[in-house]
Amino acid sequence: MIRHPTSGLAPGYVQTNLAILPPDLAFDFLLFCQRNPKACPLIEVLEAGQYEPKISAPGADIRTDLPRYCVYRDGKLEEEVDDLLAIWRDDFVSFLTGCSFSFEQALIDNGIDLPHRGTDKNVAMFRTNIATTRAGRFGGPMVVSMRWIPRQKVVKAVQATSRFPAVHGAPIHIGEPEAIGIRDLSKPDYGQAWPAIPGDVPVFWACGVTPQAVAVVSKPSLMITHATGHMFVTDLKDEDVAAL
Amino acid sequence: MIRHPTSGLAPGYVQTNLAILPPDLAFDFLLFCQRNPKACPLIEVLEAGQYEPKISAPGADIRTDLPRYCVYRDGKLEEEVDDLLAIWRDDFVSFLTGCSFSFEQALIDNGIDLPHRGTDKNVAMFRTNIATTRAGRFGGPMVVSMRWIPRQKVVKAVQATSRFPAVHGAPIHIGEPEAIGIRDLSKPDYGQAWPAIPGDVPVFWACGVTPQAVAVVSKPSLMITHATGHMFVTDLKDEDVAAL
Repeated sequence: MIRHPTSGLAPGYVQTNLAILPPDLAFDFLLFCQRNPKACPLIEVLEAGQYEPKISAPGADIRTDLPRYCVYRDGKLEEEVDDLLAIWRDDFVSFLTGCSFSFEQALIDNGIDLPHRGTDKNVAMFRTNIATTRAGRFGGPMVVSMRWIPRQKVVKAVQATSRFPAVHGAPIHIGEPEAIGIRDLSKPDYGQAWPAIPGDVPVFWACGVTPQAVAVVSKPSLMITHATGHMFVTDLKDEDVAAL
Repeated sequence: MIRHPTSGLAPGYVQTNLAILPPDLAFDFLLFCQRNPKACPLIEVLEAGQYEPKISAPGADIRTDLPRYCVYRDGKLEEEVDDLLAIWRDDFVSFLTGCSFSFEQALIDNGIDLPHRGTDKNVAMFRTNIATTRAGRFGGPMVVSMRWIPRQKVVKAVQATSRFPAVHGAPIHIGEPEAIGIRDLSKPDYGQAWPAIPGDVPVFWACGVTPQAVAVVSKPSLMITHATGHMFVTDLKDEDVAAL
């Protein structure tokens, strides 16, 4: 039973974020994902009451197969739980969206070191001043994950991740954290800060924690998510979702 | 006032298919598009009652700005109309999905001749034996558009269209029409047949007419679409939606 962050787990397999909503919010959230594909690239949507991801992980159960879950009510994080068996409802609609952990292998293959990888610690994540595109009742700030990239590897990092739009794809910003509303790289809003090596550039990718920041602002009556960094590991290989 | 097919019109601008549905079918259709991105790549979804595509063509009106419309009731094509002003409802949800006319310029730029282009005739389209992935009440066969490509240009045609997943992207099949359930290339299900030149290979792309074939099978109470080949021309440039 895994209860720690999943970065580095099952390398080469697609990992996803999770958002579960009651049916009256499902259309708005599906549209929110469609309008914000960098932050919320859809891997699979489970129709009302379904908990087996038949497309991306046949036989799995999203109520039990993530290490940890967050329950938001009216925009407030109410509790963290190890499974959803007690609170599952037959009308819940579930959304699996791609996670940047999936493209980390492509960065490593290109000689880029990622110190959080395979530890029990998380990548650094920040709320930005970039607004997502509103859809119905959902709107709010984009969250990004940040990785230090050696200056001479920045172009490679763009190229390697551009192949994987289904797991956030290319960076949304390079350098200058202030330009996207981040004041202090040593104080992430989620996850842990990691030290830079001289010559490193901060590179930012849209992050699947965005729906959790959006929930705080949009206050859906109920939204259940993965706990940050504690992802759902699918049966899909990274190459299955590669654009080219 | 344009009342003819739009292939070749406003080259370099994204053209889209249109599907309009009552709200009780909107979630299922949005999910159908998400599950069938080759046939139904979403460019914009207009929320209930909206007729101005604020993202892709601010100031336009989807009720009047297409050359011709089809009205399907219970899966039967009931009528074709020039505008939707008389039948518009304040709860209609509208879907604009990318059209292969948009990538035709990329084929032409690569020295591939497209004889239908700029005429008042249509590309050839066929129903296939490839099933779409069902979503709620929507399911049925995939429709493809077919273009004759000189043998030595087939790889170029794959490369050039792969850059544009938002307008159907790479082909879904090359050669052998029988393998996807097409018996006679001279008898398309929609549009016109065009003659081959010796050495030409038939190349097939997923087509935005798919929802119309799906409507015939799935019998939604009401679905309004563009008439085949009579597309909505957006303000987006092809490069705005290019993957790389």
